[in-house]
Amino acid sequence: MWEEQVVPELKKRVEIKTVIKYRVLKVVGMSESAVDESLRDLMVSEGNPEIGLMAGMGEIAVRIIARTQTESAATELIATTEQEIRRRLGENIFGADNDSLESVVGTMLQQNQLQLAVAESCTGGLIAHRITNISGSSDYFERGVVVYSNLAKQELLGVPPETIEKYGAVSEQTARAMVQGLLKRSTADIGIAVTGIAGPTGGTPEKPVGLVYIALADKQRIQQCTEKNYLGERELIKWRAAQEALDLIRRYLLK
Amino acid sequence: MWEEQVVPELKKRVEIKTVIKYRVLKVVGMSESAVDESLRDLMVSEGNPEIGLMAGMGEIAVRIIARTQTESAATELIATTEQEIRRRLGENIFGADNDSLESVVGTMLQQNQLQLAVAESCTGGLIAHRITNISGSSDYFERGVVVYSNLAKQELLGVPPETIEKYGAVSEQTARAMVQGLLKRSTADIGIAVTGIAGPTGGTPEKPVGLVYIALADKQRIQQCTEKNYLGERELIKWRAAQEALDLIRRYLLK
Repeated sequence: MWEEQVVPELKKRVEIKTVIKYRVLKVVGMSESAVDESLRDLMVSEGNPEIGLMAGMGEIAVRIIARTQTESAATELIATTEQEIRRRLGENIFGADNDSLESVVGTMLQQNQLQLAVAESCTGGLIAHRITNISGSSDYFERGVVVYSNLAKQELLGVPPETIEKYGAVSEQTARAMVQGLLKRSTADIGIAVTGIAGPTGGTPEKPVGLVYIALADKQRIQQCTEKNYLGERELIKWRAAQEALDLIRRYLLK
Repeated sequence: MWEEQVVPELKKRVEIKTVIKYRVLKVVGMSESAVDESLRDLMVSEGNPEIGLMAGMGEIAVRIIARTQTESAATELIATTEQEIRRRLGENIFGADNDSLESVVGTMLQQNQLQLAVAESCTGGLIAHRITNISGSSDYFERGVVVYSNLAKQELLGVPPETIEKYGAVSEQTARAMVQGLLKRSTADIGIAVTGIAGPTGGTPEKPVGLVYIALADKQRIQQCTEKNYLGERELIKWRAAQEALDLIRRYLLK
């Protein structure tokens, strides 16, 4: 689309500055308005480079378009701008251009020679699906379990029935027990567990649709357990929870 | 799109016949050319009803458009045509309009009060993801395992190491062992197991990229084990294998 439609159109509009280069930086873990606020002074109308935001599903794309007379000037203008944006948004930038969270996480796992295991309740296999969309993922994806029933949570992950009974299948305690049981049973170095209510049914006043717990552990200990409240339809809640889970792995691996 | 663009355009073209109704029948397990051949005499240019084909990912949509003077005449024309198309394509028609294979399978499982378990290697969680996209799937989806490593196949499904060693992880024997182990460990009534090579790497002359085995079993016995050879990129191979797996469940439940 970009190459075929946008670039020719942009070229038409500028007559002297014939070199147009662009780059997309991808941001996760910030709202569009937060990104907008951080970069507002750079996003000048008709500026060069031109900087624009595009909100995706659980991520924001920052587009940089440079128009110059020479290739090297465009490259330099993009590089300088990218450096400034990276300075402001830091680790919230997960990649560029064609990167996805799953491709970035995959590369990091491969480089660190680490293996990953996943236990999914409300995301229902989406995290495993996204990870295995990346060619070569068999090198670092050890296993996934989709534990929709309480019995599956007990049998495949050893979640104590008392934990589910006392705190509920959607609770921090269950998420923690899930990730602990997962890593105990797998040779993987890192485990992630997700439990939540994807809706549209199954919500209660105390535990509404969109409530999700995500726990991340390594062989040493549980590193993190996050509570999230997502709005939206079933598939969007699944997507956002998967996005968050992948991002937790990414931020853990950055350390 | 249809309501906003196509319907007004169609209405413009016909002046007397003001009632336009349409219906889509969805077909799986047949190539586009096979559907075309079966329906060719019905697909008259400018005919009424107008019948057209649209190829999707692993399924074909047959569109029926009726133009008449009254609502009831349109309904009747569609019904008669649908009946004839159903007579010709039979069980290859899995649904209509907004149905998906996963929604149809879900409804059948629910109606029959049966539970499903899934063991995925090359589809990597896509089958579980599609099934759990349907609201209410927790009623009939008992568990899923994504067994990417051989160790996971052994530990989560009890696939004998000798089977993998002798026949390979991608083989009919392994697919059979996977589905047997799955149902032995789960309370589900129906199990499906998929193993294959999604590529682009990992293929050999004997076992090329796109080779997939899918086994379906119930509590009695293994009902079916299918070998498929898919062409295309990694994500398309995953999709087609998931499509085939869901269709096997559907045809099993039709009996």
